[in-house]
Amino acid sequence: MTNQKLFNVAVVGSTGAVGEQIIKLLEERNFPINELKLLSSARSAGNKIEFKHKEITIEEATPNSFENVDIALFSAGGSVSKELIPHAVESGAICIDNTSAFRMDPDTPLIVPEVNIDQLNEHKGVIANPNCSTIQMVAALKPLYDRYGFSRIITSTYQAVSGSGRSAIDETLKQSKDIIEGNEVQPDILPVGGLPVKHQIAFNAIPQIDKFVDNGFTFEEMKMMNETKKIMGDESLEITVTCVRIPVIYGHSESVYVELNSDFDIAEVRTILSEAPGIVVVDQPEEQKYPLATDCAGELDVFVGRIRKDLANPRGLNMWIVSDNLLKGAAWNAVQIAEYIAKQS
Amino acid sequence: MTNQKLFNVAVVGSTGAVGEQIIKLLEERNFPINELKLLSSARSAGNKIEFKHKEITIEEATPNSFENVDIALFSAGGSVSKELIPHAVESGAICIDNTSAFRMDPDTPLIVPEVNIDQLNEHKGVIANPNCSTIQMVAALKPLYDRYGFSRIITSTYQAVSGSGRSAIDETLKQSKDIIEGNEVQPDILPVGGLPVKHQIAFNAIPQIDKFVDNGFTFEEMKMMNETKKIMGDESLEITVTCVRIPVIYGHSESVYVELNSDFDIAEVRTILSEAPGIVVVDQPEEQKYPLATDCAGELDVFVGRIRKDLANPRGLNMWIVSDNLLKGAAWNAVQIAEYIAKQS
Repeated sequence: MTNQKLFNVAVVGSTGAVGEQIIKLLEERNFPINELKLLSSARSAGNKIEFKHKEITIEEATPNSFENVDIALFSAGGSVSKELIPHAVESGAICIDNTSAFRMDPDTPLIVPEVNIDQLNEHKGVIANPNCSTIQMVAALKPLYDRYGFSRIITSTYQAVSGSGRSAIDETLKQSKDIIEGNEVQPDILPVGGLPVKHQIAFNAIPQIDKFVDNGFTFEEMKMMNETKKIMGDESLEITVTCVRIPVIYGHSESVYVELNSDFDIAEVRTILSEAPGIVVVDQPEEQKYPLATDCAGELDVFVGRIRKDLANPRGLNMWIVSDNLLKGAAWNAVQIAEYIAKQS
Repeated sequence: MTNQKLFNVAVVGSTGAVGEQIIKLLEERNFPINELKLLSSARSAGNKIEFKHKEITIEEATPNSFENVDIALFSAGGSVSKELIPHAVESGAICIDNTSAFRMDPDTPLIVPEVNIDQLNEHKGVIANPNCSTIQMVAALKPLYDRYGFSRIITSTYQAVSGSGRSAIDETLKQSKDIIEGNEVQPDILPVGGLPVKHQIAFNAIPQIDKFVDNGFTFEEMKMMNETKKIMGDESLEITVTCVRIPVIYGHSESVYVELNSDFDIAEVRTILSEAPGIVVVDQPEEQKYPLATDCAGELDVFVGRIRKDLANPRGLNMWIVSDNLLKGAAWNAVQIAEYIAKQS
């Protein structure tokens, strides 16, 4: 047995939906931890979380929290990341940021390990975790890009409410219950915290995730389009995205059309995807097998099905891509990055 | 006041989710009825339905039910239509069929009044009502086709469970309740009645509506593609569709990308759609206004929002199209056709 280096790890946003999964994964994956520091807002500080049979008291995250921290995982919102990450970097921590704060910063690598782990060491203290809906799409598209090349992607998403945090989960369940029981509902959280208008999510489909940009797209859609180009390292990609919130708790689904640069054999596409890291093909229509959000919840992989050649365009490929938005879409991708950092240290 | 001709009308499938809406619309629209005959399977025969303050006893639909019937509206499933419509036509009734039985028959016009009412009189006794998800899409696309022309459509749907009938509504509500209460669920109806595998629809997204064809598409997807070409009268249209069932009770939503034949002004697109018959534009992103299934349920029109120019292709147009699948998607389109028949008699 070799002497493995142990790390001082901090989790910022410990009590959030993503933070909770990060802590669980650090434990399950037996991440080489010397000391684990759990940080949160002042409101949650003082609470305790169990980690490997020991209780850890949550501390308030402040600019001074990062002394002696080797790796800090941030998922407490963009403004917290913007405020605290510069201090953490100055203290010598490598920061893995789950928010959109640094994603498009040219000095910050935007990493999906299956796609561009080779860019990991280009960081200057910060590594960004892409948007949940971006991660699962690029993970499935990369092996096809490498084999066939493509320039056109058209995607519509079916996104789970857990992407908006625990309060959105609670609201969805409460609203559903009220509607089933014939009570009035008072939407309070979705579609976007901080915006004035609220819409019912129970038994509905809301074509808005995040605020609108002047061009008629939402920030969520812009994130998917811009981040995909950055991660794939191809600014010429032509991507169109429509992001929709539906009453699913865990697991984003995506209907993806991609126009490959050459004609292709559909059996070869299935083989390529089956052999790709982090991808599981679930695609037996004759047995009604395809990825479902409820089946993929709790799983680390990205699931692909409904793989079929377009009838109108012989270079057109259609797929249905599903993954747990809190795991591969957030916590697992971040912990994966942390594992790569640990491995090379 | 002119002497209006009155019609003997039969409704086949009176007790189904669509039949119920047809009867309601005939009453609300004050359709010129002499005698209304309500027909169903033997199982529901003998029950009574109130129509204009009079109780009508439901009779079993048989080949002999159509004597003296002028207009018969069918929504009792494809096999019932295939069996009974030939008898109804022989008896002299004009049949408006809500099932897929005659839609692709070259002798049967497939009518969406806003699109191709000019083909109404080409019928030989049968007029077909298109698939719910087709109707709302072509109604919104036709005015743009007339102005700009187009050849490429890529659509992903978000379809309500009521499209699978009343038992699917009951199942969705029951499953949702069970999950909220922490009970096990036993899917029984969806995704497709008659197929062996059942999937949970509550808090899920199922990428299967109807059975699969050998090419990897479902019949629902094939219907949307083939019917759109027939209704638009343009076999050269290149259409790709992914049909998905989500836990919404009433109202199909569609994310539609269409590549127009020329560059366009987005304000002009909004004007064209606003002025088109049967279309309502709900599109003020700055006020978070866009069509929502829950808002469109119970309405007769087709609602269009998220109208935006594609960032990758200056001829690309994105839209979010929503309509009540039981009304414009079924009952209302059928009654609209009946009204045109009545008007010209």
